[in-house]
Amino acid sequence: MSALGSLTVVGLGPGPDRWLTPEVADVLASATDLVGYGPYLDRIPQSFHRRHGSDNRVELSRARLALDLAVSGRKVALVSGGDPGVFAMASALFEALESGDDPAWAEVPVRVCPGVSAMLAAAARVGAPLGHDFCVLSLSDNLKPWEVVLKRLRLAAEADFVIALYNPISKARPWQLGAALDTLRSMKDPATPVVLARAVGRHDEDITITTLADCDPATADMRTLVLIGSSQTRLLPRKGTDGLGDVWVYTPRSYTAEVP
Amino acid sequence: MSALGSLTVVGLGPGPDRWLTPEVADVLASATDLVGYGPYLDRIPQSFHRRHGSDNRVELSRARLALDLAVSGRKVALVSGGDPGVFAMASALFEALESGDDPAWAEVPVRVCPGVSAMLAAAARVGAPLGHDFCVLSLSDNLKPWEVVLKRLRLAAEADFVIALYNPISKARPWQLGAALDTLRSMKDPATPVVLARAVGRHDEDITITTLADCDPATADMRTLVLIGSSQTRLLPRKGTDGLGDVWVYTPRSYTAEVP
Repeated sequence: MSALGSLTVVGLGPGPDRWLTPEVADVLASATDLVGYGPYLDRIPQSFHRRHGSDNRVELSRARLALDLAVSGRKVALVSGGDPGVFAMASALFEALESGDDPAWAEVPVRVCPGVSAMLAAAARVGAPLGHDFCVLSLSDNLKPWEVVLKRLRLAAEADFVIALYNPISKARPWQLGAALDTLRSMKDPATPVVLARAVGRHDEDITITTLADCDPATADMRTLVLIGSSQTRLLPRKGTDGLGDVWVYTPRSYTAEVP
Repeated sequence: MSALGSLTVVGLGPGPDRWLTPEVADVLASATDLVGYGPYLDRIPQSFHRRHGSDNRVELSRARLALDLAVSGRKVALVSGGDPGVFAMASALFEALESGDDPAWAEVPVRVCPGVSAMLAAAARVGAPLGHDFCVLSLSDNLKPWEVVLKRLRLAAEADFVIALYNPISKARPWQLGAALDTLRSMKDPATPVVLARAVGRHDEDITITTLADCDPATADMRTLVLIGSSQTRLLPRKGTDGLGDVWVYTPRSYTAEVP
């Protein structure tokens, strides 16, 4: 029987190499096997790794494969975009471990390495919209009832959190973002700033700054991160030569609104 | 009059250099001036920078100094720990810009570079507690009424979000964490996992995994990030040799609880 390998869950950051931490670069350099969603693995330079790319939406089987490889003695990097702990592979890995389907899995040395998450990169790109209390939701109802999503959106609006939405829309979930925006429109100022940040940091990055009233769900796709302001989120004129538009979006540290 | 400089807001990540992005390393290497909280500047190797360290809780004057230096032609890095957009210097900078106290500030080229935030590093260290919908609050009532904090905690508990608390306690704010925990105890299962992650990634890192019932506020200080689970957050046995205890904390991607 071969010696036990290891399993490290890493995040590449949402965009280019300049957001990939030295820690993750080291893990990738010493891994024998890379397991992950194909487009993420494509961002890692060719080397002597064995690559195990897979389709989206098969996170659990990907986690099981990574554990099997580690049991067989391989040094495995399980690869997420962004941060692996935010709607990504780390939870899928622990779900597989909890299932205990193979008792050998429990012996694998596991480590999780943080990364720059898409929400942080999107926020930095447009200013500082997450500068005050905020919440983070996946809009996917594949793994939770849609009623839970709606309830959380209502409570988040009542709390006047800035709201970051992951997985806003896909071909299989075409109406959820529109329904979420309708719910928020019934509770929040129509002039609330909304940011649609698609593929932040990538060559095909596309950032739209709009309002809750004007936000068109068709502008978003599965690579879009949506940020919806609180009552305090505001726009400022932006001077610059980086082609990122003429406004900053930010939320002040102070909260001066009335408490309802 | 000298040529205009520039101002880049950066985050060092919460811990060691292995969490500092290449983008931020480049900014620091080419900056002429570093402005920030003294202990953060101490983490940057000595070089030819001019250093402008300052005490905690003077974010706005720090932002003004950075703008003044940039107007005078310096290439300024305004330094946060963690990510600069999460309860850190980016919002303070935009507050200064919005005040418009010096019209010259509006001409300064500004950029924000994301970093690994303390909550992501703390989460990775203990597993994947942020693997499902969550919210992020500062517990400081320096800049918002305490009633707003309490209201948000109640709504976050009702939404069954995982909760990340920044700035949980300080010498000037000794009772707030205890009051916040009492509020959450009145609404949540006493067995809910709680993580107190102090100085994550630093030489004096100290991580406590406990429950809502047993959590002692005196275990936390101003360098502690507090994570409070949802109804779904759970513990798993942890095997490993890294001295980080014998349990993982994680929140599954699926939400299977009843909708109240």
